[in-house]
Amino acid sequence: MGEVSDNSGFDFRFQARSHPMPTRFELANAIRALSMDAVQKANSGHPGAPMGMADIAEVLWNDYLKHSPDDPQWADRDRFVLSNGHGSMLLYSLLHLSGYELSLEQLQNFRQLHAATAGHPEYGYAPGIETTTGPLGQGFANAVGMALAEKTLAAQFNRPGNAIVDHRTWCFLGDGCLMEGISHEVASFAGTQKLGKLVTFYDDNGISIDGEVDGWFTDDTAKRFEAYGWHVVPNVDGHKPDEIKAAIELSLTQSDKPSLIICKTVIGFGAPNKQGKAAAHGAALGDDEVAAARAQLDWPHAPFHVPEPVYSGWDARKAGQARQQEWNTRFARYAEAYPDEAAEFERRLKRQLPATLSSEALIEQAQEKAETTASRKASLATLNALGPQLPELLGGSADLAPSNLTFWDGAKTITADDASGNYLHYGVREFGMGAIMNGIALHGGFITYGATFLIFMEYMRNAIRMAAIMNQQAIYVFTHDSIGLGEDGPTHQPIEQLTNLRTTPNLCTWRPCDAVETAAAWDSALKRHSGPSALVLSRQNLAHQPRTQAQLANIQRGGYVLKDSDGTPELILISTGSEVGLAMDAAAELEAQGTAVRVVSMPSTQRFDGQSTEYRESVLPSSVTRRIAIEAAHADYWYKYVGLDGQVIGMTTYGESAPASELFKHFGFTVDNVVRHAKALVG
Amino acid sequence: MGEVSDNSGFDFRFQARSHPMPTRFELANAIRALSMDAVQKANSGHPGAPMGMADIAEVLWNDYLKHSPDDPQWADRDRFVLSNGHGSMLLYSLLHLSGYELSLEQLQNFRQLHAATAGHPEYGYAPGIETTTGPLGQGFANAVGMALAEKTLAAQFNRPGNAIVDHRTWCFLGDGCLMEGISHEVASFAGTQKLGKLVTFYDDNGISIDGEVDGWFTDDTAKRFEAYGWHVVPNVDGHKPDEIKAAIELSLTQSDKPSLIICKTVIGFGAPNKQGKAAAHGAALGDDEVAAARAQLDWPHAPFHVPEPVYSGWDARKAGQARQQEWNTRFARYAEAYPDEAAEFERRLKRQLPATLSSEALIEQAQEKAETTASRKASLATLNALGPQLPELLGGSADLAPSNLTFWDGAKTITADDASGNYLHYGVREFGMGAIMNGIALHGGFITYGATFLIFMEYMRNAIRMAAIMNQQAIYVFTHDSIGLGEDGPTHQPIEQLTNLRTTPNLCTWRPCDAVETAAAWDSALKRHSGPSALVLSRQNLAHQPRTQAQLANIQRGGYVLKDSDGTPELILISTGSEVGLAMDAAAELEAQGTAVRVVSMPSTQRFDGQSTEYRESVLPSSVTRRIAIEAAHADYWYKYVGLDGQVIGMTTYGESAPASELFKHFGFTVDNVVRHAKALVG
Repeated sequence: MGEVSDNSGFDFRFQARSHPMPTRFELANAIRALSMDAVQKANSGHPGAPMGMADIAEVLWNDYLKHSPDDPQWADRDRFVLSNGHGSMLLYSLLHLSGYELSLEQLQNFRQLHAATAGHPEYGYAPGIETTTGPLGQGFANAVGMALAEKTLAAQFNRPGNAIVDHRTWCFLGDGCLMEGISHEVASFAGTQKLGKLVTFYDDNGISIDGEVDGWFTDDTAKRFEAYGWHVVPNVDGHKPDEIKAAIELSLTQSDKPSLIICKTVIGFGAPNKQGKAAAHGAALGDDEVAAARAQLDWPHAPFHVPEPVYSGWDARKAGQARQQEWNTRFARYAEAYPDEAAEFERRLKRQLPATLSSEALIEQAQEKAETTASRKASLATLNALGPQLPELLGGSADLAPSNLTFWDGAKTITADDASGNYLHYGVREFGMGAIMNGIALHGGFITYGATFLIFMEYMRNAIRMAAIMNQQAIYVFTHDSIGLGEDGPTHQPIEQLTNLRTTPNLCTWRPCDAVETAAAWDSALKRHSGPSALVLSRQNLAHQPRTQAQLANIQRGGYVLKDSDGTPELILISTGSEVGLAMDAAAELEAQGTAVRVVSMPSTQRFDGQSTEYRESVLPSSVTRRIAIEAAHADYWYKYVGLDGQVIGMTTYGESAPASELFKHFGFTVDNVVRHAKALVG
Repeated sequence: MGEVSDNSGFDFRFQARSHPMPTRFELANAIRALSMDAVQKANSGHPGAPMGMADIAEVLWNDYLKHSPDDPQWADRDRFVLSNGHGSMLLYSLLHLSGYELSLEQLQNFRQLHAATAGHPEYGYAPGIETTTGPLGQGFANAVGMALAEKTLAAQFNRPGNAIVDHRTWCFLGDGCLMEGISHEVASFAGTQKLGKLVTFYDDNGISIDGEVDGWFTDDTAKRFEAYGWHVVPNVDGHKPDEIKAAIELSLTQSDKPSLIICKTVIGFGAPNKQGKAAAHGAALGDDEVAAARAQLDWPHAPFHVPEPVYSGWDARKAGQARQQEWNTRFARYAEAYPDEAAEFERRLKRQLPATLSSEALIEQAQEKAETTASRKASLATLNALGPQLPELLGGSADLAPSNLTFWDGAKTITADDASGNYLHYGVREFGMGAIMNGIALHGGFITYGATFLIFMEYMRNAIRMAAIMNQQAIYVFTHDSIGLGEDGPTHQPIEQLTNLRTTPNLCTWRPCDAVETAAAWDSALKRHSGPSALVLSRQNLAHQPRTQAQLANIQRGGYVLKDSDGTPELILISTGSEVGLAMDAAAELEAQGTAVRVVSMPSTQRFDGQSTEYRESVLPSSVTRRIAIEAAHADYWYKYVGLDGQVIGMTTYGESAPASELFKHFGFTVDNVVRHAKALVG
């Protein structure tokens, strides 16, 4: 924040403090009162964390956080993440008190339909919410992603004496966040990357839902984080502002190490009969206890009433405006000196693609090249073609770069000492990768892609869902997409994963059948700013498919007629990815035997479902009920398109370890088997 | 192993060593040669880890591992887990050399269809494989589960001077295992539980797939594990048997701490041009390098040839027989002194339920009680009724006991100092819980159940898949199963998760509609020894449904007619869980308006799909194509049952934060909406 990062020399703390000052305790109690009142009114929610962390939050927000409530989107604001998102009333109280557009009425409407104050902080619902939190540990990972994004953006854009990117990331953590495995992945990663501008606070209250944590959580957390290369301030009394301030000051001197400030707190602080107990964690305190807490805290005000001097003590708008004005001046200087960089900076923050991006032309070029290749290789070729045009690309893989083929010719590794690159070796940390990608996307300035084998999508699964919930662009490169990966066997062969992806709302999944559809999938993913996309790619070679211009254009519709019969088809084969070639071969055989067959390639069911009824009817006419879906993945999903009269040649068991060609034979993905099914169906 | 745990006073090491002895290096080179030969022949696989860990494995297997190759199921054997499962040839070599039924032909058949020697070790494929490994970190978690199972079984059955359960768990770990988040969850858990008989070896070779790990993995691993309360032996030269032995000896003196032995090794040790590099990790070395390695290792033998003295040096059969004989004698003494306990021990290891188990009767009783209650509460009532009859139950929750309602009246917490209980507070560690449950199930002696909110199934998702792949019984209690959980909002409300579970091969998923179906689901799950079951339960109350005896019996078929029309129905409503009550109300309204409606309750699609064609046709006659599925989960799955002519009232977006009743209205789960859709369909 200001002290270290601002260059203005102006200490905003004094301005923020120029009002007749309520005590720090009184300021913190405003959080406590609003939180317990809102939870009580909703009769649902978590008062414990807001009441326990109120003093820490008061010191951080009033003395350190660099932000501007009038402009929650200000590019160089500090990021604040409440990883223990169940304590949402803490964040809502802070936003309300410091001057964001979040009214008292919204606080009173806590947890009601369409309120900005949802049960957990939901990105986009209220200004100032930097990320959606609730699924434990992921907010921490988002914060790591934000800090990494800041460091990389700074390395790419700042110039000597002209730092337009210079902010911190602050994060609150609960016991649950630190028990979750993802905390290990991202803390280890942050230590390796030396994210010195990340400062986290651990709410060490000794309580989780089952009770006192020492029955199941006995880590020496300070030692654990030191092992990750972190700066740790242990044993801070989380109710003593001076100790909190001292710990923050110490952390601000660390440029090479992320900081963990371990604050001993009392959960539900101020509720005389429930504080320090699991009873304060996740339920309304009850009218009597709320009244008793008012007495204990010496907070005599009515529910939801905050006295004016307290509001004044919190109001961060003026200081924020001044800070932002100072930054605007700085940015104007930068724009004068580096007009191209400044324009590029603004373009990237607006999430605009370069006007000259050639991703569409690439689809046509691929069609002309007519290459038979693995779709993971086609993906690498796409990256090699588009990468130089997209400095905002920030890629990576969870230790599978040589298999996922994501390290393109212009990829440059981001290291602790040089953050100016565009590629992250995430290590074997899929979940961490997914949630860090979300943090990078939320921070802005980048388009992230991250890769692993499709099966290990499962390790990162909930981070994908979070990207989709938050409408964040993230591109997943999932290779080795079926039994076609061969010898690694059942643990590595995806079966039900495609269905999982396809049924995830707001995720756009592509399983391209050749290099052309792979280029189209990348084109779609790069342009889809409203949510994540998954590219599901083969390890093995896929035959090129011929297409007319019209067919080429239709790829973006998600499903299209790749081969048609003369007249109305007797049978439609629907297929994706590596099985489209099989469908085409089977169709040729069936045509030779006199059956009129249409082949539909359906690389993205999500895109197809979004087309007009007319278009969908033109591809899959209701009158043709003899349909066979062919995909080396779980069969059930496809009944949506083939119905009760159709058939699915798919998987319903796990795979086996053997060369791919053996497996396709073994599991019935052969021309003979398709023809046999087709003939039985057509009769 | 023997040294500490055996009571016989006989040092088996000397017997194992009575042959004319090849050097330790020579013994280890047999592993190296077999591994590189097999990978070379398959032209696929991972030679690096087996060649790097050969010396460690040699010391462990020849000097410490208590096992009996002639009886891989011997109850008191040590468990050995290769968590870095891609090094499968290490395990296959060990099993082959020490005398298990795993022939040289099988080794030569590495990674071929139906071979016992799959690409990764697959449980059940070859004797001596204790668990399926490959998805990194989970083998480690399985080992923690095995060690916990040993400790608890010992606490429950051993009597003073009469220890029938007394074995160790050994586990090999790679860099990938230690980067994965799950390693944090289970190492922390193992430290808290003081699992002193767990000894792990970290193959610290500095290499992962992307290259040298210090670009992405800079943890001080020794310090990290000390922070978990582990005993750590750092800086062991993994190629010096004396150092390895000394580290093991030190670890065997630890009764209260699990041990981590950090072995510095060279990946692909012996391959002169590829050792120490990522090139040795995951591909065949090539003929030239294999030949060069033969020279470097002074292993002049032909591919797949192991000289007789080397076989003799490895043969563990006699020593194993003697050990097992000693244990048999010990068990006979025990059976004499404690006949009931001995019988119970044998019953539990055979995975037989008590003959008198009243789980079926409980279904009828629930029908008679006719209670309206949440299915999570009905689940607790079932546990309270059956728990006292099932001492093998080993339950737990990932810090949601008060919400999942899994801590039944007879639950007793397992603590570090008293392992005799039957309940684990897993902490906020869903993935760890799932994979620890697998370890407990594989160890034997228990039926495990573990709980979390349905949405956080995603955190543990791949462990569920592993249970299903390994045919292991595990019971998942997933509560808060839909938007019906209310105020916690979209991050906590499952949408696509049910489809994910239902499309997982060999997982049996239940979503019961009332207390009766909940009892039936538990009955099914307890009796299903061939794979895991998921019980998907509501937070909110569910109305009791009336049933005839025949309907009651049909619950176990997974889908049945709950309410029928007079004559052929014009419309079938298919529903599950909390929406069955809605379907029944809508059916009543439609009948009142003159439409003949059948209601099918479908608590388990997996069970229903397994019924005869006749039965399925009797429930869902092909002639009735007007069908509506109603479920507050993703719509797509249900087209399998309603086809192209039917409709689904389901979810296709994320939920919202609000009271449950508001949400059901908001998303169209109302009688009015169902009736409207029905009328439009019936016309």
